[in-house]
Amino acid sequence: MLDLILLGSGGGMPMPNRHLSSLLLSYQGRKILIDCGEGTQVAMRKMNTGFKSIDIICITHFHGDHIFGLPGLLSTIGNSDRTEPIIIIGPHGLKAVLKGILITTYLPYDIYIIENSETSLGFILDSKLLKLNEFQGNGKNDMIIDTIELEHSSPCVGYSFYFSRAPKFLIEKASLNNVPQDIWKRLQKGENVFYNGELYEPNMVLGEERRGIKLSYITDSRPVDAIPEFIKGSDLFVCEGTYGSDEDLDKAMKNFHMTFSEASKLASKGEVKELLLTHFSTSIENPEEYKEDAKKIFENTIIGYDGLEKTIRYQ
Amino acid sequence: MLDLILLGSGGGMPMPNRHLSSLLLSYQGRKILIDCGEGTQVAMRKMNTGFKSIDIICITHFHGDHIFGLPGLLSTIGNSDRTEPIIIIGPHGLKAVLKGILITTYLPYDIYIIENSETSLGFILDSKLLKLNEFQGNGKNDMIIDTIELEHSSPCVGYSFYFSRAPKFLIEKASLNNVPQDIWKRLQKGENVFYNGELYEPNMVLGEERRGIKLSYITDSRPVDAIPEFIKGSDLFVCEGTYGSDEDLDKAMKNFHMTFSEASKLASKGEVKELLLTHFSTSIENPEEYKEDAKKIFENTIIGYDGLEKTIRYQ
Repeated sequence: MLDLILLGSGGGMPMPNRHLSSLLLSYQGRKILIDCGEGTQVAMRKMNTGFKSIDIICITHFHGDHIFGLPGLLSTIGNSDRTEPIIIIGPHGLKAVLKGILITTYLPYDIYIIENSETSLGFILDSKLLKLNEFQGNGKNDMIIDTIELEHSSPCVGYSFYFSRAPKFLIEKASLNNVPQDIWKRLQKGENVFYNGELYEPNMVLGEERRGIKLSYITDSRPVDAIPEFIKGSDLFVCEGTYGSDEDLDKAMKNFHMTFSEASKLASKGEVKELLLTHFSTSIENPEEYKEDAKKIFENTIIGYDGLEKTIRYQ
Repeated sequence: MLDLILLGSGGGMPMPNRHLSSLLLSYQGRKILIDCGEGTQVAMRKMNTGFKSIDIICITHFHGDHIFGLPGLLSTIGNSDRTEPIIIIGPHGLKAVLKGILITTYLPYDIYIIENSETSLGFILDSKLLKLNEFQGNGKNDMIIDTIELEHSSPCVGYSFYFSRAPKFLIEKASLNNVPQDIWKRLQKGENVFYNGELYEPNMVLGEERRGIKLSYITDSRPVDAIPEFIKGSDLFVCEGTYGSDEDLDKAMKNFHMTFSEASKLASKGEVKELLLTHFSTSIENPEEYKEDAKKIFENTIIGYDGLEKTIRYQ
């Protein structure tokens, strides 16, 4: 099960009635934040999310509306008594940018920076923290993050998050394989167990792999060709829709953004379950006005708003 | 005449119901901003102040609640089509801090940095901009900024602003000195005029110097001995009152802040006309509760709140 809150739905500049686009994922009590514009910490306070349990922050790109809230948020997390490291993921240049914008900031915890990752990143829930899996490629991952290069006026990456689902425990299979009941729990957790001179493996008690939850996040970008494959089958596809009307296509092309209908075409091609639009231009007062432009192309479209909450369950 | 808006009245962290301490002065249509925490630009939008006419930004110190809004505000000013330079004044280290926090920020105007100024800074209204007077110490200044070193957990300066008042134009004196009416306006502006073979000087038509408006701004600091002399006779003394109750004196001392009564003692010693308290701890929900603690010592005390507006007129 994955919970999420759209902390803000705006693009460009923070406004009194709309926070900047940022998404907070909550998985088994641990949090992943995507982007952090000026005021993201204020949105988190409004929505009572707490600060201490953020283990990972993903940055799409270095425009102010996606990063200027980072020094303040990281300071506030420091005030929440966190001492465990935080992982920050972002495009090429992340180290230099963080060094710059954090010049005045003392933090009582370490930051582990992953810049321009070209491989899938596996994470495990270890001692209640979401940690990078040391055994990348092998072993079981609780979560996998992938990135895609986007097309914006600054180097920019999109993200996909895959949350694994544990296979079912099958009592019949355990009995059939004569597995002693004492070690069922450990096998269910994925451990190999040597017990009374015999080796027992998890597949002696577990069923087939089960599909997890996939969420993808694309902002800011033009609709590049590789996106449909990258977001393929997502339970939720969060995508920028900076401009509502097709009449603003010229602006969208000039500023390397998308219109609602461009985003919904991607959702359709990517065969996702649901599309959530965000990152609305400050010129759009009520994005709901353009809802039909998106729904004509992709029916399961939600127009984002600050504070939108959602739970995605395993199928 | 000087107009001001208290954009925020909080300290430490930006809160949903209280912006961080920041003051916006408006003098003859030009603006001076003091401090810029995360969300200051949002407060400015709420209060419809506009962005383009900010000529000077004064920074007290480099703690996040006083500077993390700067990259965003400067970007937004850039979006307002400003091309004239902005002057930023602050303590030692300002250049390095700005270089760091603005690492990702492109601005379509120049920034002129004044770091750790040890002398009075004179400004003139030139072509409708508040500009540094090239003739420091000489010539007429429309505004003078002075700084004082404070006692905080980071290098910190306080500010005083003196807005000059033009002397009165005296028709009787002009007639007595046989000054031709054609050149009255130019003399009134402070020019020396050579006319029909004679030199005329402003003092041939003007009365005595008149007292201008003095505003002083102290945050964050312990109440150091030099403050009363620095703020002497201010029309308005804006001062931090991080803690309301005297019972929090220990905290105030430990964190290098002041209680309400410490601030009001300074106001009394400095013989100011009015005290405006700001920079309230996030632990104080309603600072009005502690109003009497301050008023017992200094009657003319105002408890600040976001959006407080005030006009100070020449006496």
